[in-house]
Amino acid sequence: MKAITSPQNPFIKQLVQLKDKSRERKKTNKFLIEGKRELSLAIKGGYKIETLLFFPDLFSESEAKSMSAYDIEIIEISKEVFQKLAHRDTTEGVIAVVNSKSHQLENLEFSSKNPLILVAEAPEKPGNVGALLRTADAANVDAVIIANPKSDLYNPNIIRSSVGCVFTTEIAMASTEEAIAFLQKYNFNIFSALLQESEPYHTQDYTLPTAIVVGTEATGLTQEWRDAAKQNISIPMQGVIDSMNVSVAAGILIFEAKRQRNFK
Amino acid sequence: MKAITSPQNPFIKQLVQLKDKSRERKKTNKFLIEGKRELSLAIKGGYKIETLLFFPDLFSESEAKSMSAYDIEIIEISKEVFQKLAHRDTTEGVIAVVNSKSHQLENLEFSSKNPLILVAEAPEKPGNVGALLRTADAANVDAVIIANPKSDLYNPNIIRSSVGCVFTTEIAMASTEEAIAFLQKYNFNIFSALLQESEPYHTQDYTLPTAIVVGTEATGLTQEWRDAAKQNISIPMQGVIDSMNVSVAAGILIFEAKRQRNFK
Repeated sequence: MKAITSPQNPFIKQLVQLKDKSRERKKTNKFLIEGKRELSLAIKGGYKIETLLFFPDLFSESEAKSMSAYDIEIIEISKEVFQKLAHRDTTEGVIAVVNSKSHQLENLEFSSKNPLILVAEAPEKPGNVGALLRTADAANVDAVIIANPKSDLYNPNIIRSSVGCVFTTEIAMASTEEAIAFLQKYNFNIFSALLQESEPYHTQDYTLPTAIVVGTEATGLTQEWRDAAKQNISIPMQGVIDSMNVSVAAGILIFEAKRQRNFK
Repeated sequence: MKAITSPQNPFIKQLVQLKDKSRERKKTNKFLIEGKRELSLAIKGGYKIETLLFFPDLFSESEAKSMSAYDIEIIEISKEVFQKLAHRDTTEGVIAVVNSKSHQLENLEFSSKNPLILVAEAPEKPGNVGALLRTADAANVDAVIIANPKSDLYNPNIIRSSVGCVFTTEIAMASTEEAIAFLQKYNFNIFSALLQESEPYHTQDYTLPTAIVVGTEATGLTQEWRDAAKQNISIPMQGVIDSMNVSVAAGILIFEAKRQRNFK
């Protein structure tokens, strides 16, 4: 088995770039994951694991070796190398180099004939993307579309805050224009979540093919989504402060649609 | 007008303690807030502002002086003092010493005769408490009860993540035992959110006096809440990962109750 002990090793330096730089991830179509749970969810999600690096004090050699059945290169690393690669304080001792998926709109596969899609336009924080993906997983929506994305999907903070849901959900990234064209082509009813000039969300029918669209907390949705909507919708805000966390708002809207569909 | 220029000033040192230490806040029944928005929400929420400290490069002296009408002591501070007191990167130049409220159960005032209450047991992270309070404000619930609290309410991270909703919501802090006794005394229907042995949340009736109870993401609710419930409820989880962000879950449950009540 190959072993790397020096943090100065060129391959390790390349992996640090992969961890830190979106540009590097895009160029190579690879990214890093760490932790057993994330690894197993990525495998479950059909991701191709290229290389597995393990620190033997924390991750058993036999467990690592068992992965080679999946045509994965296994490398033993030292504590120094592990610390250099690990994004978070972890005690699991395993890091993997994984091939990205394409996330084109036309590659989306819907598990239902009457799909429900969550669209998030330009979500600002990785933590918000992660929370949206957790909600999408819980509701088992057919897909999530990230329109005008602000970062790549494999940002370590997105992977982390999604608790691995980034691997279990059908996700497409596209411009707002492309996303609208796609949804119109497949006859989705578009419901755009706004604060103004909109109908209360619970008065609408989400039982046909539905896309629920949420914007940023700061600026809301662009005009394109307002114009493309079958109906603009809002959650009645009855408090002092006219704002809601975007992942909470998305949860309320998506689960109202699920309720109307009897959670089928 | 009084002015303080030295970060070593004993009063300033005392305020740093107030910012950093829960124990100090509890002992003195005071806490710090910073920012114009938080200040105005605290005043709106009926909080007594004791002292206002302002850094004149960022906050106008005339604005500061206008506050003395409210019987508030006004102190001009230097940049060094401001930086020592400020919890976050802020450009607003204003910090206030505020009197705590009591947050006893028996002090709760319900605005409706048919109240809806959100109960959170032992929420772990200040950010979760803040997000729950934002949801509570948006839904205008009659009260939030924090059972077995892990921190005091005036933790700077709670104030910040609640975007000031900590000041606009009726909040009580109590032990789980006391909270259950209170809810039973006033004939609330208690719905405890669990993953197991529970009915789907959308099959229940929340139109009578209702308390919706959520636990921590890690360990869920204690047995006491399960036993006290009229009905244990759950959000159907249809994805790969059996967990949901607690503030998203609370939003889904509270807004289902609001929907059933026609948002009245």
